[in-house]
Amino acid sequence: MPTKSAKNLRARRALGTAIKRMRGQKGLSQEALASACGLHRTYVGGIERGERNVSIDNIERISIALGCTVAELLTEER
Amino acid sequence: MPTKSAKNLRARRALGTAIKRMRGQKGLSQEALASACGLHRTYVGGIERGERNVSIDNIERISIALGCTVAELLTEER
Repeated sequence: MPTKSAKNLRARRALGTAIKRMRGQKGLSQEALASACGLHRTYVGGIERGERNVSIDNIERISIALGCTVAELLTEER
Repeated sequence: MPTKSAKNLRARRALGTAIKRMRGQKGLSQEALASACGLHRTYVGGIERGERNVSIDNIERISIALGCTVAELLTEER
């Protein structure tokens, strides 16, 4: 059942790439972004590398800190 | 710190509404959608009501089962 396997999932990687790119555009360090959304720097690093199965609430917190929409962080996933 | 409070987060509610609407358009029951993405029916119900802080992997599984993109499930959140 390929749709149930985590191996076939790529949204979290696309999300991480988008967050890293937007953070760079804003000139924010991982630490500054993490602080702005109440998360730990190493957790934000893990999200950017696609290692974390981040929740919708934390995706929204990051989008607010980056000044973009949740959808903008997820538009490249296919 | 308003951006850190769950009270100010609305993406999960918008996500639930979008999933419910798309599921209806596909003529799928909650049970059929849940089965297609390897989740439990009551969990899908909780997601649709905005009660669950669903993860990116499960959002992607649902989007695959609904035949849409993750971004399409999250475009109404602002």
